[in-house]
Parts: sequence; structure tokens; C-alpha cells
Amino acid sequence: MWGGRFSARPADIMQAINVSIGVDRRLWAQDLAGSRAHCRMLAAQGIVTQADAEAILAGLDAIDAEMREGSFPFREQFEDIHMNVEARLSELIGEPSGRLHTARSRNDQVATDFRLWVRDACDAAAGQLQGLQRALLARAEQHAADLMPGFTHLQPAQPVTFGHHLMAYVEMFGRDASRFADARARMNENPLGAAALAGSPFPIDRHMTAAELGFDRPMGNSLDAVSDRDFALESLAAASICAGHLSRLAEEIVVWMTPQFGFVSLPDDLTTGSSIMPQKRNPDAAELVRAKTGRIMGSLVALSTVMKGLPLAYSKDMQEDKPPVFEAFDALTLALGAMTAMVAALQPDTERMRAAAGSGFSTATDLADWLVRELNLPFRKAHHVTGAAVKRAEALGVDLSQLPLAELQSLEAGVTEAVYKVLTPEASCASRQSFGGTAPEQVRARIAEWKSRLP
Amino acid sequence: MWGGRFSARPADIMQAINVSIGVDRRLWAQDLAGSRAHCRMLAAQGIVTQADAEAILAGLDAIDAEMREGSFPFREQFEDIHMNVEARLSELIGEPSGRLHTARSRNDQVATDFRLWVRDACDAAAGQLQGLQRALLARAEQHAADLMPGFTHLQPAQPVTFGHHLMAYVEMFGRDASRFADARARMNENPLGAAALAGSPFPIDRHMTAAELGFDRPMGNSLDAVSDRDFALESLAAASICAGHLSRLAEEIVVWMTPQFGFVSLPDDLTTGSSIMPQKRNPDAAELVRAKTGRIMGSLVALSTVMKGLPLAYSKDMQEDKPPVFEAFDALTLALGAMTAMVAALQPDTERMRAAAGSGFSTATDLADWLVRELNLPFRKAHHVTGAAVKRAEALGVDLSQLPLAELQSLEAGVTEAVYKVLTPEASCASRQSFGGTAPEQVRARIAEWKSRLP
Amino acid sequence: MWGGRFSARPADIMQAINVSIGVDRRLWAQDLAGSRAHCRMLAAQGIVTQADAEAILAGLDAIDAEMREGSFPFREQFEDIHMNVEARLSELIGEPSGRLHTARSRNDQVATDFRLWVRDACDAAAGQLQGLQRALLARAEQHAADLMPGFTHLQPAQPVTFGHHLMAYVEMFGRDASRFADARARMNENPLGAAALAGSPFPIDRHMTAAELGFDRPMGNSLDAVSDRDFALESLAAASICAGHLSRLAEEIVVWMTPQFGFVSLPDDLTTGSSIMPQKRNPDAAELVRAKTGRIMGSLVALSTVMKGLPLAYSKDMQEDKPPVFEAFDALTLALGAMTAMVAALQPDTERMRAAAGSGFSTATDLADWLVRELNLPFRKAHHVTGAAVKRAEALGVDLSQLPLAELQSLEAGVTEAVYKVLTPEASCASRQSFGGTAPEQVRARIAEWKSRLP
Amino acid sequence: MWGGRFSARPADIMQAINVSIGVDRRLWAQDLAGSRAHCRMLAAQGIVTQADAEAILAGLDAIDAEMREGSFPFREQFEDIHMNVEARLSELIGEPSGRLHTARSRNDQVATDFRLWVRDACDAAAGQLQGLQRALLARAEQHAADLMPGFTHLQPAQPVTFGHHLMAYVEMFGRDASRFADARARMNENPLGAAALAGSPFPIDRHMTAAELGFDRPMGNSLDAVSDRDFALESLAAASICAGHLSRLAEEIVVWMTPQFGFVSLPDDLTTGSSIMPQKRNPDAAELVRAKTGRIMGSLVALSTVMKGLPLAYSKDMQEDKPPVFEAFDALTLALGAMTAMVAALQPDTERMRAAAGSGFSTATDLADWLVRELNLPFRKAHHVTGAAVKRAEALGVDLSQLPLAELQSLEAGVTEAVYKVLTPEASCASRQSFGGTAPEQVRARIAEWKSRLP
Repeated sequence: MWGGRFSARPADIMQAINVSIGVDRRLWAQDLAGSRAHCRMLAAQGIVTQADAEAILAGLDAIDAEMREGSFPFREQFEDIHMNVEARLSELIGEPSGRLHTARSRNDQVATDFRLWVRDACDAAAGQLQGLQRALLARAEQHAADLMPGFTHLQPAQPVTFGHHLMAYVEMFGRDASRFADARARMNENPLGAAALAGSPFPIDRHMTAAELGFDRPMGNSLDAVSDRDFALESLAAASICAGHLSRLAEEIVVWMTPQFGFVSLPDDLTTGSSIMPQKRNPDAAELVRAKTGRIMGSLVALSTVMKGLPLAYSKDMQEDKPPVFEAFDALTLALGAMTAMVAALQPDTERMRAAAGSGFSTATDLADWLVRELNLPFRKAHHVTGAAVKRAEALGVDLSQLPLAELQSLEAGVTEAVYKVLTPEASCASRQSFGGTAPEQVRARIAEWKSRLP
Repeated sequence: MWGGRFSARPADIMQAINVSIGVDRRLWAQDLAGSRAHCRMLAAQGIVTQADAEAILAGLDAIDAEMREGSFPFREQFEDIHMNVEARLSELIGEPSGRLHTARSRNDQVATDFRLWVRDACDAAAGQLQGLQRALLARAEQHAADLMPGFTHLQPAQPVTFGHHLMAYVEMFGRDASRFADARARMNENPLGAAALAGSPFPIDRHMTAAELGFDRPMGNSLDAVSDRDFALESLAAASICAGHLSRLAEEIVVWMTPQFGFVSLPDDLTTGSSIMPQKRNPDAAELVRAKTGRIMGSLVALSTVMKGLPLAYSKDMQEDKPPVFEAFDALTLALGAMTAMVAALQPDTERMRAAAGSGFSTATDLADWLVRELNLPFRKAHHVTGAAVKRAEALGVDLSQLPLAELQSLEAGVTEAVYKVLTPEASCASRQSFGGTAPEQVRARIAEWKSRLP
Repeated sequence: MWGGRFSARPADIMQAINVSIGVDRRLWAQDLAGSRAHCRMLAAQGIVTQADAEAILAGLDAIDAEMREGSFPFREQFEDIHMNVEARLSELIGEPSGRLHTARSRNDQVATDFRLWVRDACDAAAGQLQGLQRALLARAEQHAADLMPGFTHLQPAQPVTFGHHLMAYVEMFGRDASRFADARARMNENPLGAAALAGSPFPIDRHMTAAELGFDRPMGNSLDAVSDRDFALESLAAASICAGHLSRLAEEIVVWMTPQFGFVSLPDDLTTGSSIMPQKRNPDAAELVRAKTGRIMGSLVALSTVMKGLPLAYSKDMQEDKPPVFEAFDALTLALGAMTAMVAALQPDTERMRAAAGSGFSTATDLADWLVRELNLPFRKAHHVTGAAVKRAEALGVDLSQLPLAELQSLEAGVTEAVYKVLTPEASCASRQSFGGTAPEQVRARIAEWKSRLP
Repeated sequence: MWGGRFSARPADIMQAINVSIGVDRRLWAQDLAGSRAHCRMLAAQGIVTQADAEAILAGLDAIDAEMREGSFPFREQFEDIHMNVEARLSELIGEPSGRLHTARSRNDQVATDFRLWVRDACDAAAGQLQGLQRALLARAEQHAADLMPGFTHLQPAQPVTFGHHLMAYVEMFGRDASRFADARARMNENPLGAAALAGSPFPIDRHMTAAELGFDRPMGNSLDAVSDRDFALESLAAASICAGHLSRLAEEIVVWMTPQFGFVSLPDDLTTGSSIMPQKRNPDAAELVRAKTGRIMGSLVALSTVMKGLPLAYSKDMQEDKPPVFEAFDALTLALGAMTAMVAALQPDTERMRAAAGSGFSTATDLADWLVRELNLPFRKAHHVTGAAVKRAEALGVDLSQLPLAELQSLEAGVTEAVYKVLTPEASCASRQSFGGTAPEQVRARIAEWKSRLP
């Protein structure tokens, strides 16, 4: 490939550390797309003849077919996908193949291929996220008024509805999708034509290749075009934040499925058993979703570390950009798919959740708020009275709604029978009518809004 | 604070691990802004009386003054900024202070304060980035036509202009600024009114507090509002990518300043000396900028790790959200400031850079391109011939432009005298007229475009 | 400080990014120890006079006293702890102070100070870990035979004893302590005397300063001595692994304390309440311990990123070594302290744990093992039969021990009454007598062994 | 596999996220070793018959042969390596295969297999490190007295020898090897026999399997045995620190090879060319070594994140332990191999290095030290005088050794002709005789010591 000046073949270890075809073969479709666009532009600009261009395009079509049917001969000796394709093109069409690389370099070629791949991956992730949101919306609609405990510190705090809880994730995954959209918009510029690093002396038309490849415009600086990978880092960051959200829902599924909670179950086809404990129904898929966060965060660290302190323009370090990106998006794809399946299939035990929602003095805040509203106590005083009431109820072994009126009055003389109306979990939920609150009407309003917003 | 039910004081270790006032005191201005907005809304909605509201607002003004003059009594016993302010308010105005916390919880209060802080930090970073871009543009304009080697693998590859090189960073920092802008837009929703996690039974107006605090709208789900920190993670990711860009320019400054390069120097007030080696002029500022990448990336990992797998809604783990964010933005502020100062003060040795640009066979690609353009050789063949020419020139100890025509013709018969016109670095640069290329006109066009785009 | 050659004072931003006294003032004791050792050695070798040495040592004593009583005048203009001490020494004793820096540089001085600090931090962490192990051993001994469910996938799998569960952490923390011990042994070499990077032309005795500072020997290469921070990275890695172990126990405490589990409670002085939900008893300390993992892991990433790709010897980037190390060990100290307090104070509800241990077909494996042992079924066949038995019991709504014999015999004809003896959780636990198994005798044997092993 | 109780087959996405055979097939040799040891122990203890054991061992031998010749039928339907082997064993030997899993679970099986693999990987890394040290020692011996600039801040500080510089890395890699040795010793305990999590009711002998597998002893707690992966984290941390060291040497090679430095070159078989710039000799191998740091650090973050906050005992998250470990050690193996090849092949340009060593006032410290030694100036005063001398020399455009005596005397009257003897780089190096200093005798002494220490 660069044999002209070299007198010795690379050492074996050189070959071993240098070869990337095992990884970057995944870029074959992008590489062909980039080469086609480049070839058509070269012909349009008169840099190659129409005849050569047609030969090259026919050769690229043949390679495309070989790729699709699995017969393309990948060879380590050609190091990477770009040289593999070029070498094969030369075998297929002979001399004209040597004209394809005019006004181009591997540096802008790989930058283009990789950017196209990451752009597609972002689009796919955004699409999967919308699928997951739709699954959540469907379940939230079913359970917009079904009660469960709202937890803080994994301690029951106030009753919420299961639909409200699921809708929290609709919000999170909505932001995740918008992050991928922003990353896509920012990266959608064409590196092709930057050549090695300085641009080209040939009369190329970078706007034409941009249009053909779906880029919004050419990148404005040739050094930047071949040497930055911030688009990959931003996409990994978006993936990592999304994975964090997934890990939280996954954790909740694991917790909800433990018999001590028994809030939800999953069907057999989304759980596994044990090789030694035949009774187990394990939430493996949720655990694996939770774990994928690690791989995705690790990928971001990996590429950040690679890029740190590299002088311009291209350094070979940047060949290490693809493994973390491929692995992170593979992990994210699986995690989003598995989570969507689990959300769609979750079987909540609404009775058990309702019972838990009503235990643990979960309407204490409602008592405090009642004292503020009805007796005009300052909140801090109401809070103090409520704390004493809970303490008393706990000592008597009863729930707040069962605490005798006399007990309440001994703490605050003005309390009346009317207070008991706010001490059920249903009343508590129904009262939280503030925008975005857990009252079923609010939950349904948000569901309707999201449904109209999703494509 | 929650004394009603508790019979024992927290153990010392509990106090030590739990207290956060040493860190979150930085949120005082945001906390006061949030409390003012909440108070005005409570009054407007008739939830507190106008008189109470006025007392509260006067008290908050007094606290504001204490904060500004440094006389506010921060106390560890009140744990965090929110309780410190509330306790002080109570001391200052008595009973009405107890009404401020109506329809609010520390959960939505801290979410609001922190979001306001991060929003400001993103705005400030974007502003600093534009300052850095302006400094780069000014220097790029000065040196739009001054030559230097364009490197790949830290080996001279092709001549570029110093202005073109600096403009690569203008592009990067432009994307960085847009990342902060996107993060800001996405986070600019109001958590206040989510209360503990379920919303409020009081007739609050979350749109009113949103408007007062500059938020675009209230957040749509109360659980999400108090439990997510993705806005902080996204901001840290933007900071981390930006820091990576800074680390690359910092590395280049360090390399350029080594006497072996001698491309640039920095004035005394941006370098340091040595305690034992009096002749040293060390690029400490550049090294420290490079190092800040570590702290910022570490902060992102820290918060990602904290958030991984947390069930909804609030968990105390999330108190660990502020140190990494504060530290990362402090580091970024310093790094951007120091880099802007260095860019403004860089003293390039343009002669030395020009000399380096012309050495190392840096116009080999121009020879290859000439062979393609003028002799119609396929690129791969031209590449091979050029490789042989370089090998020959190296053996003769001359540069390409000094290689006798006969030598060139022995490799490719069609070469003529005309080839020497493309073998100077000036000609090389001037020829790279493709959009975004290093030809001085192109560089100047991009400078003009960026100048018109920056506020 | 390096004024001889410089004509301008550092710019404000230079000062701001460069100053480290706010951070490295924590090294004051180490700095004084290093200076004392260096001074005594200079005198012993005749490099400074005895009189000068005595003046210097007296000055250092005075500074020591100022530090202890808080009257030492830290000043930003002197940048770091080393220059602050030296400047103060000059004020206190005049000219002889200028002789202390003979045959020394800030590079070996800071390497020495920091190594001493990290060494102490490792010793302290190891000591705290042993305290935590002792707390666990005491609780394990109390509960060596108390049953709880052993979980996999957070699903009950087989009964274990609470003591056995706690002993798992004794093993983990034992390895953690040994990791700190290994790190300490590896780092315990003396950098002092490496001077700036090349060693010294003065007849210094590095073995003498090594002995005085408790180092095992001088470091063997002066470049390595001033430029590596692997000792800090290794210590951070040990801290990070330890924090991971702590996060697991913390997660368990959080889960066990949720009312749905109700396995343990913590006293009031180790829990917190809520500002709005008076009934809450939140496991804040456990959550904060869990969260500290983030900070510690982030610190490791921070310093790793800083050190990546730095050429020898000292680069200013390395000034960023101290914040992550200080913060990580501060976090670890708090986390170990809080965990030890929680372990000592945990109040298990042994009845509830026993009940849970017996539910969920937790002795299914015991049935399978019985079928293998008594009926000589191949394990895989026994596993299949047991699975069918569980399915049958689930359908009938009974536990395995209540499944009629006829049902069992319909699945495997050879089953006899004797099988019921292995189907209680007590029998299950007692039977697991393999080395390291959960049978109480085994648990007690391991407790005894660890007690004899701990200092 | 766990069909007895399940009525539906796993969904496709479940299968896709759950299957691990594509990754864990690498454990086949460890899996067979573990099964053989377990089988022999079962027979020795009378838990299976001798005939069954012989059948099993013969079956395992047959599988071993299939693995070695590449004919083993890996099947995704059997999920992982353990079930693939067991399924194949069943096909090969029928019923006795079902007895192999007696007193064992996949949980202890995978813990054993993985621990064996990591142990081998640590041994291999330590072995490669010693090879790299030997390569460095050989080169250091050749160049023990050849001068080069010692850099701080990438600015020449004081002359050192190239041998001394290389020996700094011998020290670092020595510590790296000892870290792997410590990790190995700590992890070398036998998890086998922990069964699912609670130990086994069969009379197994864990000491026997420990001995057969080369473990020092059985692990002391069955829950710990199946649920911790700290051994993998510690190994990754050791790998990461080692990779950091490699990245520094790699950076130096990249810098030294740039024509501006021209300190070293690499032969053709360890460099690459460019597809468009035929004259390039790129240090790709060094750059790739530098980049591997990212992957290895990312792997550590990945697994740390996975393990954070997992309750005991086994969770499926832990299946994500293997990809980061495999990838990190693959990267480390390549990096160590490539670095060893580069070190052995480095061609230093000793003349150029010597010239650089003498430029840049590199003996200023020697002047300062002379003033201290000969004129008894306090160091700080000598430092100041030297700074002024450098400033004067710079103004005159001469080096320190060329500065007229009158100039020196105008700064410090006592200076004599004798001072010029210390102002050559040779004299500077030779004078630094302190233990571990750069004087060639010191360098040679350290080489001799390391040679005797290495196996």
C-alpha cells in the first residue's frame, strides 16, 4: 500500500496491532456510499472521465452485492475496510480503480464513513426510544389511576399512581431522544474533500458530495474534518445518559419482582431459571440492561482518554475510536429492545401495590397539608404536629387513618373529623392536581400530550 | 429539623457524612431566587397572605444582603443551604417564615436551585467559548497566510497556514458552545412545584414560577422533576468534550514551545520558571489546561456512577451531584480563561514555522497530484512514483524541489520543468482551494463567516 | 520565586490556574518532615554547617507550632505549600533558610511529601477496614445461626444465615485491606534526593533520609522518582474497589430497610427524616456510602487521564494529582466510618428474616440434592423433577414442605417421607457443611479464624 | 435448560441479550480444567462412581480434542460455555454427564473459570513486562553514557543519559509486574464448591480441587466466592496503570521521532506510510500503544460501574464482567508486544541528542550548585545569580559556557575560571553521583542490579 519507499515488511506485531479490518468491516456500506458520492462528484467536475466513473460505480455495485451475500473476501493484509474495498475494486475493474482515490485520503474517507455510521446509530437509537416511550404510554394509560407507593430513599413517601411513575420515564426517554437528535444535527456535516488534512488542489465540489450523503453542508475546516471525533463522544455521552435512565428502570423492575415487593412479574419468555434452583424466575433481562450502563460509560471513558492531548491532525490513536462506539451502540440497542419488551409485558399486581401505597403512614404529608390549609398552621408547625401524630400511631400499631380523633386533638386542638377524608391514598393522589402531579387527570393529560407529540 | 418523631440526635459520623453546607452554600443566590418566586406565587394564589409574603420577601432581601457582604451565619447544624436560609429567615422574621415551605419540599427546592446554577454555568461557558473563538479569529486573521507544517502522526505531512490551524479550533469551540446551548435549552424547565415527588394539593401555579425564574415551562412529571440529574450529566459531558479540545490545543502549545520546535513562545506573565533551573520558561498554564481534562472527565464518571441504578424518586445519593459539577465547571472556567489568554499572547516564530513547512518532503502530495492532473496517471500509480522520488531525494540528501529533473524523469518519463512550480510550500498551500482547505483565501473566507456569526 | 530572569509578573489568570496552596496546604506535616530529614542529612554530610542546620530545624519547629495552632500565614503569592514554608522560614531565621534547598528541588520535594501522605492514607484506610471487619465479626457471631434468604438476582434462592452473609463482607474487606498494604509496600521508597530530575552533585545520603522518613530504600532512578504517580493511582484503585464493596453492603442495607423487606432497622441517630414527610426514616448514611463510589471512581479516572501520555520527567499537569487523591480518601474515610457505625447498630428483625428464608420454595435445591443422594438420580434429572414439584406446589398454593407425598411420588416414584426432613430452611442451612458453606459450624469456624488473624 | 417449570420459550430479544457463548467460549480450557478437577474430587469422595467419573473424564478429553481442532459445535441455544460443554458431554457420553453437575452450580463454575483465566492473564502480562524490561536494559546498557536533554515541561532542564531515561521505565514496569504478582496471589483461592451461593450438602473436598487447579486454598465464604469480581477489577487496575506507563513511553517515541526532534527512528517494519503522503514514516505502533490506555481504562470503568451497588450474591449483571477483561488484556498484550519490539529496534541519533543536551542553558543548575559549593552562597541566592547569568547569556546570544568571565563576575564577584569545568553537559551528568542519579556509573550500577533481579 505504501510500498514505494519501504524496504521491509511490517513486523508481525506491527501487523497485529495495526490491522483493523476485523472491526471496521462494519463500515462497508458507509464506505461504498462515500465512494459512490466521491466518484460521481469527480465525474461531474471532470476530474475523472465519465467512462472511468461508470466502471468504478459498476465495480462498487459488484462489491455491494458481494457484501450483501457474504462473499466479499475480507483480507487482513489490506488492513482496513477502505483498502480492502479498494483492493477488491482493482481486482474487479483494473486501472480505473486507481482514479477513485484522486482528491481523497484515507483520513477524510474514514472520517466520512464513521460519521455516517454514528449518524445512523443515533437515528436508530432515537427511533427505539420512541418505541419504548409508546410502550410506556400504553401501560401508563392502563394504570393511570392505579396506586403504588411513591418512594424516596426506597422508603414509601406518598402514594402515586403506577401510570404517573411510568410517565416519569417517558419524560426521561424523551430527553434522551432529543439528545440524539441534537447530536445528529451537529455532526451532520461533510468531512469528505478535506483530503489528508489540507484540502485538495483538484476542483472538487464538497457541497455536491454533502448533498448526496445527506449532510447539511461541508465541514468548514479541513484539519478539523479529519482530526476531531467529538461527534462520536457526544453520541456516546447521549448513549451513556440514556443507559443511566434504563439502569434506573431496570433496578426498579428487579426490586419490584423480588417476592418481598411482588409488585410486578414478567412472563416466562422474559425471565430465566437457575441451573440448580428450579423455582427461580430471574429478571435476567432487567439485570443485563442495568449492566449495559457499565459498558457504555466505559466506552465514553475509553474514547475520551484516547483523544486527550492529541495534536492535530490525524493520529493513529484515532483508529481506536470505533470499537468503543460499536460496542456501546450494540449494548444500547439490546438494552432498549429488552426494556421495551419488558415494559410491554410487565404484569403489575395492582392489589399488592395498592396495599403498599396505603401503609407506612404514606398520607402524613396530607395531614400536614390539611393542617396548613384548614387550620392555617405555618407549614413547619404542621410538620411538627404530624410527626408527633405518626409517632403516636406507630406506638399504637395503627395507621394514621385509624388514629382516634382524640389523639389528634391532643396534639392540635382544632383537628376535626373532616381530616380523615384526606388520609386515604386515593384521596392523597386525587388531591395532587398541580401541573405534572400524580392526580390521575394530570397523568392522563400528560399521556395525551405525549401521544400527540410522538411521531 | 425533623425532630418531631426522632428521639436521638444523629451520631457524629452521621452528621459528618450528611452535612453539605460546605458545598451547597454556593447555591445561595439560586436558593433565594427560587424562594422569592415561590413566595410571590403563593401570595398571588392566595395560599399565603400578602402580609406574610411581604415579610418573607423582606427577610429574603435581608439574607441576600448578608450573603453579599459575607455576614450570613452559615451553620453546619442546619445541614444544607436550604435549611440554613430557612433557619435564618425564621430568626429574622419569626412565624411567617414557617409558611414559605408550604407546597414545596427540599426535593423540588434543591432540584430548582441546582438546575438554575447549572444553567448559568452553561451560559457562562458558552460565553467564554465565544471569547476564545474571538481570540482565535484575531490571531488567525494575522496569520492567514503564514506557513507551518501540517502534521499527521506528529510527522510533517503537508504545509498549512497557521491561521488555518487556529481556525480548526474555532470550529471545535463553536460546536462546544452549541452543545452548551442545547443542554441549556433542554434543561430549562421548572421543577418547582413537584414538591416531595407527587405534586401538591395546594392550588399552586407552576407556570408563574417558571416564568419568574426564566424557565420555558414547568416539568411535566413530578417524579422526574425531583429525581433526574441528566441535565447535570449532559452539561458535564459538554464540558468534558470541550476540555478534550482544550487539551489538544494545550498539547500543541507545549510541543510548539519546546526549543526543538520553537514555533511559538509565551510572554513571561503566562509562563513560569523553575526553583532549581533558572533558565526555564515553562508552559505551566498550557499543561494545567491539558490536565483539567482529567478532573472534568472524572466528574462525569463520578456523577454517572452515582446515578446508576437508583430507583425513583429522590435518593440521598443524589446529594453527591454538586461536588463534581462545581469542580468541573471551576476547572473549565480556569481552563478557558487561561487558554484565551495564551491564544491572545502567543508569539509565533513565523520564519521558523515556514522553514519547517518546507522541509521533510512536505510537497510530496503536490507532486503526486501534479502527476494525476497533468499526466493523467491513476492516483495509485502517481502515489507510487512519488514514493520513489522521495526515496531518491532522501538518498541524495536534497529536498523534492531540488531533485534534478532527470531523476524525476527516470521514474516517470513525462515529468517536465513545470512540476517545480508546485513543489514549494507556498504553492502547495495556495493550491488547496477546496471549500475549507488551507489556501489563504479559503481561510479568510471562513474567518469572515465566523466573525459575522459570533454575537 | 523565579524572578531573576522574568520581567513581568504572572497574569491574573496565570496566578489563578497555577496556585495550589488551597489544596496542598494539607501536606504541611509531610513537608516539614521531609525538610527536617533533608536538613539533618545535609548537616551529617557536611553540606551545611551544624549551626545553619540547627537554625533551620528551630525554624521548622516554629512553623510546626504555627501550623498546629492555626496561626501560620498561608499566602497565595507563594503558590504552594513548599514555597509558603520556605518563605516563612526565611522570615523566621533569615539567611540560613536559603541553604535548606541545597541538593533538592520542588520536584523531589513534592514527590516525597505526597508519597508520605498517600502512605499514611493507605495505613489509615487499612486500619479503618480492620475496625469494620471487627464490627462485622461481632455481628456475625451474634447471628451465626439466624436464617435469612440467600438471594441471587434479588430472588430468594437458598436459606443462609445472617452471620454467613456478613462474613462474606469480612472476606471482601480483608482483601481490601491487603490491597492497601501491598500498595503501601510498593510505594515505600524515597524520592528525596532525585532533585529536579537527574540526581544531585552534592554528596547527599539518600539512605539516611529514607530511614528517617520510614522509607525502605531510596528510589532507584531519579527521573522515575519525580515523574511517576503510579503509587497514587494504585491507592485510588484500591480505594475504588473497596468503595465498590461498600456500595454493595450499602445497597443491601437500603433494600433491607424498605418496609417491604423489613429485615433490619437503624437507630434514629443513623437515619434522617424528611422535611415534608414526617414519618420517614431514611437510610441516608447508607445511600451516601453507596454514592461515594462515584467520587472515588471519578478520582481514579481523573488522575489516570491526567497522567496519560505525559513525557518524562515532571510536567505541571501533575499538580492535578492531589485534588482527586484528597477527595477520594476523604470520601473513603467517611464511608468506612459510617458503614462501621451502621454495622454496629443494625437491628435485624430475625423473625421476619426467618420467615422470608422459608418462603419461595427456597429448599428446592435441597429436594434436588436429596433425589441425587438418596435415589441416585443424575443431577440434571433431579433438577427436572424438582422443577415440576415446584410448579405443582405453586399451583396448589403451598410450599414445598407442604406438598403431599403423593404429588411428589407422581413425579418420582421413589420419594419417601424422609424427604420432608430436608425441606425446612434450618435443615437446608445445617446441611451445607462444605468448607466456607453456610452451616452455622462453618460460619463459626471462619469467625474464629478471622478473629485470630486480625491484629 | 430450566425447562421443567417454564411454559414459554424466551423471546428473541431475551435470547439476544442473554446469550454469552460468543464471548465466554474463550473460557473453554478453564471450564474443562474445572470440570476435570470437580469430577475427580466427586469420585475420590464417593459422590459419583469411579465408572461414571471415567466416562465423564473421557468425554471431557474428547471435548478438549474437539476444541483444539476447532470442531467443537458451539451453539447459541446453549447460551454459554458451561452449558455448551455440558450439552456436548451429554451427547458424547449420555447419562453419566448428568452427574457432573452434582454439588456444583454455574455460579461457582463461572467464578472458577474466570478466575483461572484472569490468573493466567496476569501471569502472561508479568512475563511480557519482564521481556520489555530486558529489552530496555539491553538498550540502557548500550547508551548508559550517551547524553540527551532531561526534560521537564518538555523544556530541556538538565542533561541526562539516554540509558538513565530508559532505566526510569525499567523501574515503572518492574512495579507493574509486581502489581500483577500481588493481584495473582490475592486472587489465587478456589471458588469451586461454593455451589449456587450457600455451599453444598455433599461431602465435597474443596482443598482437593484447589490443589488440582493450582489454587492456594478454598475461598472462605461461599457467598463471597460466587459474587465478587474484585480480582478482575484489581487486574484491570494493574493493567490500566501499566498502560499509563506505556502511554508515556509511546508519547516520547512519537515526540522523539518528529523531525523537529529527530532523536530516534524506527525501522520500516515498525512504521507505516501514508496513502497520500509517500514520504511519511509514521510511528503508528507507538500511537496505537498510547491509545490502548483508553480501552483499558474504559474497561476498568465498565466493570466498576457494573459492580456498583449490586446486592449479594450472584446477579446477572455480572455476566458483563468478561468483555471488558478480555478486551483489556488483549489490548495490553498487543501494547506490550509492540513496545518491546520498538524498544529493541529504536535507532537513537546520539549526536543529535548530545547537541540538544548542551543547548538551552541546560547546565544552569550546575552553575548554581557551583556557586553554593565553591562560594558558599545560600542556594536561593545562587539561584538568583544564575537566573541573571542566563538572562545575560540569552541577550548576548551565547550559551552559558561561552559567557565571558567578566560578565559572570559582574553578577558575583567570586566566580573564577574553574566554573567553566562544570558547564559542559558531560560534566553535569558525571557529577550527579547521588544514588539513582544520572551519572553513568550510577546508571550502570542500576542496570547490573536489575539484571540480577530479573528471572
